[in-house]
Amino acid sequence: MVSSVEAVLGWDQETHLPAAATAHRAAQLSWLAGHVHALATDSDLKRLVQRASKGANAVQQANLRVIEREMKRQSALPASLIEEESRAVSLAKASWQRARAKDDFPAFAPHLEALVGFARRKAELWGYPNEPYDALLEGYEPGMTCAQLDNCFGPLQPRLIALAAKAVERCSQAPRVARPTAVYPVALQKQLNAEIAASLGFDFAAGRIDTTAHPFCTTLGPRDIRLTTRYDERDFTSSLFGVLHEAGHGLYEQGLPAKHFGLPSGRACSLSVHESQSRLWENHVGRSEVFWQRWYPRAQELFPALRRLALERFVQSLRRVSYSPIRVEADEATYDLHILLRVELERRLLRGELAVRQVPAAWAELSRQWLGFAPKNDSEGCLQDIHWSMGGIGYFATYTLGNLHAAQLFKAAMSEGSIASAFRRAEFAPLLQWLRTRVHRKGALKTPSALVASASGGGISPEPYLQHLRKRYLGGR
Amino acid sequence: MVSSVEAVLGWDQETHLPAAATAHRAAQLSWLAGHVHALATDSDLKRLVQRASKGANAVQQANLRVIEREMKRQSALPASLIEEESRAVSLAKASWQRARAKDDFPAFAPHLEALVGFARRKAELWGYPNEPYDALLEGYEPGMTCAQLDNCFGPLQPRLIALAAKAVERCSQAPRVARPTAVYPVALQKQLNAEIAASLGFDFAAGRIDTTAHPFCTTLGPRDIRLTTRYDERDFTSSLFGVLHEAGHGLYEQGLPAKHFGLPSGRACSLSVHESQSRLWENHVGRSEVFWQRWYPRAQELFPALRRLALERFVQSLRRVSYSPIRVEADEATYDLHILLRVELERRLLRGELAVRQVPAAWAELSRQWLGFAPKNDSEGCLQDIHWSMGGIGYFATYTLGNLHAAQLFKAAMSEGSIASAFRRAEFAPLLQWLRTRVHRKGALKTPSALVASASGGGISPEPYLQHLRKRYLGGR
Repeated sequence: MVSSVEAVLGWDQETHLPAAATAHRAAQLSWLAGHVHALATDSDLKRLVQRASKGANAVQQANLRVIEREMKRQSALPASLIEEESRAVSLAKASWQRARAKDDFPAFAPHLEALVGFARRKAELWGYPNEPYDALLEGYEPGMTCAQLDNCFGPLQPRLIALAAKAVERCSQAPRVARPTAVYPVALQKQLNAEIAASLGFDFAAGRIDTTAHPFCTTLGPRDIRLTTRYDERDFTSSLFGVLHEAGHGLYEQGLPAKHFGLPSGRACSLSVHESQSRLWENHVGRSEVFWQRWYPRAQELFPALRRLALERFVQSLRRVSYSPIRVEADEATYDLHILLRVELERRLLRGELAVRQVPAAWAELSRQWLGFAPKNDSEGCLQDIHWSMGGIGYFATYTLGNLHAAQLFKAAMSEGSIASAFRRAEFAPLLQWLRTRVHRKGALKTPSALVASASGGGISPEPYLQHLRKRYLGGR
Repeated sequence: MVSSVEAVLGWDQETHLPAAATAHRAAQLSWLAGHVHALATDSDLKRLVQRASKGANAVQQANLRVIEREMKRQSALPASLIEEESRAVSLAKASWQRARAKDDFPAFAPHLEALVGFARRKAELWGYPNEPYDALLEGYEPGMTCAQLDNCFGPLQPRLIALAAKAVERCSQAPRVARPTAVYPVALQKQLNAEIAASLGFDFAAGRIDTTAHPFCTTLGPRDIRLTTRYDERDFTSSLFGVLHEAGHGLYEQGLPAKHFGLPSGRACSLSVHESQSRLWENHVGRSEVFWQRWYPRAQELFPALRRLALERFVQSLRRVSYSPIRVEADEATYDLHILLRVELERRLLRGELAVRQVPAAWAELSRQWLGFAPKNDSEGCLQDIHWSMGGIGYFATYTLGNLHAAQLFKAAMSEGSIASAFRRAEFAPLLQWLRTRVHRKGALKTPSALVASASGGGISPEPYLQHLRKRYLGGR
């Protein structure tokens, strides 16, 4: 309940808050955050949870187990640490914005140092099997450890480096397809985005699409899912792929059991499973030929400039590959190298093998090795992401895990003949139905790995993802 | 703090909430309302307030006195009563909507009966000098009693009845001025409204204007004031007068001492004083000749159809007078008769002189006597307002008090030569400055009557208001 109230205030902050109102909004949110932590560590509540398992059914017992685990984790942190960290984050975010604008890493370094310090203190309080990163990862990906990451990312990394290099090479030799230069009116983009989101199954009686600087999806209640995107009048695909990605998150949220809202059985399994849903709809569906066989004629109706460009060439234009210094602008074939780089640096920072002041050099070194170039400055390098300034250390891994899950789930779904043949007719309802049954309705009672494994009928593996990338970007099968 | 969080959720409910999300929003709001009541009756807090007066300065002491009075009032009501009433209100609101749609007063009657019962129980718990209505009025207008209302509304009523009759007669004999039939695009209406609101002093860095079915103003934080209005493509004055009225409320909220947000010294004095600000900007400024000398050329620029209508005739069109069965559509000259009718019926209900089932007949009777006609059904009669279904008995009086205060404050301000001469040049900043100093910055430390009396240099009187109406609608001075 409190978290959904926080979500309303957070959404309003991104979409509507007047400039002068930020300080009071911060005070409102910090008051609510205090409530959340107090509830999560309340000793009466803890006793109630312990007692409640008597006479509970299987789902209730599973809920109680997850709640108990989370309360234990929260209670391991003193309130003073939460408050200190919250203040440090406020300062770090402001410092990061200035540092990025001025390309001044040394100005941000003391803040990053403080946040790494908090991350290490929390890891020590929580405990971990092998290295501090394990303890942080657990907060985003319950049950996941660095050892498992190594099993998965270890074989992935060299193959991704080689695949990306080949894909970039191949793309640079092909003739470049440019989408027609024209004004794509925002009102018509909104029209197309809404038609597509609705056709994929997004329920506008229980959700909306609004406009923000960066797209996101947030849940204000079990039947109140808000997506956002940003508009570029010269490129309608920018807002549309924002919507496809966020609608993937939104379909997941709308598919959770509403009756269990607020309980583990009624909420998303983890960040990586969430990301698997957004990437599945954005990339496996939204960048497919069949999707555009269905939607390109409608886009041409709304945007007559597109009539000059054939469908095949339009789809090619969505699959251009090149190295970008900026993660959020990276294409599907090179994206995960950005992630693996960050995960590697975070783990070194937490193990104490890397000092904060050495981050820019280490970043440049890995970038050179994996992406073939060093960023031209820190604003385009280690200062580019907001995550660290928000204390979100341990978060990045979930992006690549999400890509792996997406490929594995999509492959499993398409192995069912009726889903595959509907997909070839650009009918995506059976695919959604499969995800509803195997993923969405399961809530967060299983670990992400167990959920994906049971949904796809096999252990976590990077193979389906590599296969998908090879097929799409190297013309392999 | 909690109330401002409630305000965010309330605003979002009116402006953006998806259809299926209402139930969870109600749950969120009721959770917050429980917090508000718990805080307002907390015994530790009460002790703290009692102790705090030692060493407090004059403003702090005044704040503590108001807070103590309010906590005493809240504590007089058991939590069970609050909860029962809140449930009854939820049911009554839903019933009222259906009953109004179907013109079925008997279906709503048991709900109204229940709410009158709660109002009487609360009045008994609070106590009152003469009649139960006193106790309810105190909640909206601290320090106001029925005896004072009688002093004020008593002489007002027969004179208003006569004045309205003459104004309607006079208007019906004059040639009718119709504004040009045209489409007034919503985007251009928004443009004009924003220019006007900004020119009056509304600070868009600390506020916004959005779209709702019924205009309102709400405060989400000391620098976050949200106005709303509704748009009619065939009549730009509908959205504009909505904005002028709500901007009056908004200017008041933006003029309160932000540092004192959440304390009596940082909040509006009462509903009637709030209404005085909205009516002052809507009617005394917004329907004046000088206002339109300044803004009509701009309106003609944006809406070329207006070029066919001269300024004088446009202003006449804003001052049409006729009897309307519907309060919210009533003009300035007849509006207060609707209010006095409701106040009379509420007082009779609370004194037990009128049974709920007799309300339609009593309504028709008073309407015939004062407005010259009986409503053609209950949907256009005693079912037309939302207030009773929300338990808001005792609220209506503040509308007419607001009109009286507006006229009294406006007259006092205009008695200062520099303000009057600026006003004649359509410069309203000195008027706003006067209101800022005499009204806005004072917060809620005085009673409404004391505040208006000290700002205007004289006791509460209906004379300035009658004088204003006579001058505008009967051509008197």
